[in-house]
Order: sequence, then C-alpha cells, then structure tokens
Amino acid sequence: MEIDYKNIKVIGFDADDTLWVNETYFRDAELEFAKLLSGFETANKVDQELFKMEMKNLPLYGYGVKGFVLSMVEMALELSNYTVSNQTIEQILNIGKDMINKPVELLEGVTETLDALSKKYRLIVATKGDLLDQERKLEKSGLLDYFHHIEVLSDKKEENYSKLLNHLDIKPSEFLMIGNSLKSDILPLVNIKAQAIHIPFHTTWAHEQVSEKETNGKAYKTVKKVSDILKLV
Amino acid sequence: MEIDYKNIKVIGFDADDTLWVNETYFRDAELEFAKLLSGFETANKVDQELFKMEMKNLPLYGYGVKGFVLSMVEMALELSNYTVSNQTIEQILNIGKDMINKPVELLEGVTETLDALSKKYRLIVATKGDLLDQERKLEKSGLLDYFHHIEVLSDKKEENYSKLLNHLDIKPSEFLMIGNSLKSDILPLVNIKAQAIHIPFHTTWAHEQVSEKETNGKAYKTVKKVSDILKLV
Repeated sequence: MEIDYKNIKVIGFDADDTLWVNETYFRDAELEFAKLLSGFETANKVDQELFKMEMKNLPLYGYGVKGFVLSMVEMALELSNYTVSNQTIEQILNIGKDMINKPVELLEGVTETLDALSKKYRLIVATKGDLLDQERKLEKSGLLDYFHHIEVLSDKKEENYSKLLNHLDIKPSEFLMIGNSLKSDILPLVNIKAQAIHIPFHTTWAHEQVSEKETNGKAYKTVKKVSDILKLV
Repeated sequence: MEIDYKNIKVIGFDADDTLWVNETYFRDAELEFAKLLSGFETANKVDQELFKMEMKNLPLYGYGVKGFVLSMVEMALELSNYTVSNQTIEQILNIGKDMINKPVELLEGVTETLDALSKKYRLIVATKGDLLDQERKLEKSGLLDYFHHIEVLSDKKEENYSKLLNHLDIKPSEFLMIGNSLKSDILPLVNIKAQAIHIPFHTTWAHEQVSEKETNGKAYKTVKKVSDILKLV
C-alpha cells in the first residue's frame, strides 16, 4: 500500500512498550501475584480471574498501576474466600510500589530516532495510564526535551484522538501516531483518516489484542523497530 | 489592591471544590474509615495516621481516590498490627468505589458564571487528581461544552503552570486562574505573574493549608462565590 507522509506536522508516540518496557513488568507482577495466591488456586486460574477483575474494574479505575493493585487486592479477598493474610495484602501493595519505582528501560534506537525526528516535526507523547506515572517515567527516561508536551488520554478511542487533534489544531492527515498497540495506537487513527505506524512489542496485554479481521485492508505500516521510521518519513 | 484583568485571554478553573463538591466526600470517607478501625484506635488517631500515610505515599501515588484507597488499606494493616479482617479491607475498597461513583454536585452559580464567561474568554479546567475521575466528573457535570479542554496536572506548582502557559502559548498576564486552594490555585500563579481569584470552600484538606505569612502582600482577589467573578472581569 502506498502511504504518503508528506503532510505530517505532528508525530505522536505511545509511551509504554513503544518508548520503554512496560508490559513485561505487568507480566512479572502477575507471576508474583499468582505465587502469593498459590495456596488457593493454580497460577493459570489466578491469571484468568485477575484479568476478569481488571476488566470489571476498568470503567471505575482506568489504566495504570494503582487500579491494577486495587484489583489484585480485591481478587485476593475473593479467591481466598476472605482468608488471605494481612501479610499477603501488604506484599500485593509492595508489588505495586515496586512497579512504580522501576527504572525506565528505553527500547532500542529510541533516543536516536527522536533526535532525528524532532528536527523536522513537533513530537508529542500520547499515552493512557496514570498521569503521574507517565510524567515520572518521561522524566526518568531523559527524553523530555524531545517532546512538545505529553497528552495522557483516559482512553485511546477515535473520539479521544479527534479531541486531541482538535486541541492541537491540526487536520487528521497532518498527524502520525506511532505505537505498539493495534487497538489503541493504530486502528482508531486509521479510522479517523490520520496516519499510523505499528511497532509490535513481543508481549501484548490481552485487553489490547485485536483479531485479524479488524486490521484487514487498513492503511497503516508495520515496522520492526522504532528507527525504521526514519526510512519512511 | 488594584488588579487589572483587561489582558486576560484564558481563564483556568480548578475543578474539585471550585466547580463541584469534593472535599466533603473525602471527609465522609475518612469518618467511615475511622469507624471501620474503631476497634483498634480512636477516630482522631486514625485520622492523623491516615494523613501521615497519605503524605508518605503522595510522591508514589499522587492525588486522587485510588491512591487514597491504597493508603487506607496500608494504614488498616499497620494500625491493626496485621489483624484487620478481610471484610474490613473489602469495605475500604468499597469506600473508594462509592467515592468514584458519587454524583457531581455543582456549587452555586457555576453554570451561569461559565455561560457568561465562555462568551468572552477561552475557558479551561486545570485540575490535579486522577485523569479518568476528572473527565468523568466533567462529563457528569454537564459543563463540558463550556471548556476548550481539560488539563490534569500531576501537581500544581509554579513549574506546572509555566508549562501549561507555554503549551497554551500565552503570557502569564493573559491567564487568570480561579480556585479554592491558596496553595495550589492562587500562590503559584501570583508568583509567576499571572492572575488569580480565590473562592474559599468551607473545608480545606490539611495538605492544602497555607500560613497567613505566605499570602501576605500577594496580588490576588478573594470572592465569596463564583458568580462574584462576573463583577471583576
């Protein structure tokens, strides 16, 4: 498919798993959580039930570590039939604190790519999750200077992006989004006639998975690593 | 003090306790929490210790209901010397869910004031707290159409406001902030030479309290209710 990037004025970057490692830490936390509850249920069952709990609580808590921890606590009460120890609850809280305190591990080629792109385009971060978490990660990442600003969206649906473009005062065709999630970073953009480039990350949260049918015939490109963008724009 | 509002282009409104009731719900939650722990400590002690816990966790969790709930859970474990029941933990989680689900109760005169001001100025919401919570409240409030956009700041210090003005592409003298917290909505603005109008709310969170010394000789006005602004600008 021929895609034309010549009108692009602003490039939006997803943050988690596009600029730095994130999903890996959630996976590690889930493993730790399953271990804490291994006296009550198999790891597989704990995992499934936790995902259901997260989905149930998503409209209330939104994305990010704090809601994840609250869902783990609620799950521990339920799965243990209200017999889980106070010490285990404390360890769950600590899993969350450790996640928040994790160092930021940049993905390969990120700094050089942003450095090159920032000379030609206005770059922003467009992420969902917790505002404080994301600001903190951006600060720790050393990438702050490359970005005009950071947009934390409560969700990444078409309407959220349309509002963002409105706020940026640009047309859809002038915006290029780059990210690892087809569901959040790519398809909504293609649907509103903006541009998008997909960079898959090796792990995808179940909530972010999409079927092949949904991507069929959609106008976006997929690259292997972030620096490949430089060959396109 | 003579203050000149003729250069104002953008007016920023704090949300919680400026547009709608909020602190009252936190106070109610604290009372409920103290009641849950009344077998372990006096209400007064629970209150004091919870505040200390919130302050300890603030750099990690930031503002908002989710961090507040996580601090209550941690406090319950500690204050009970790790003997609190699973049922009590569940009730603490439910306090949080109830807070998130509370209807939005607008303060007197808010709609008329925004309606009048939105004809002359660009209005934004500048709030700290949880992005999803604040978007949800704004939606429930019916006020969405009056605002150009909503800025959720991770904190409300001088540097956060300077970034905001930069992003809005206006000079400090062109910005007027309106809010109930001297610490968060007024003093940082005055310090960066922007304008600010203070509307006290009957309850102020201890973390937001400032000494008289800090406000001495600062150039801002105080009004009793939001509609009083219309007599000034």
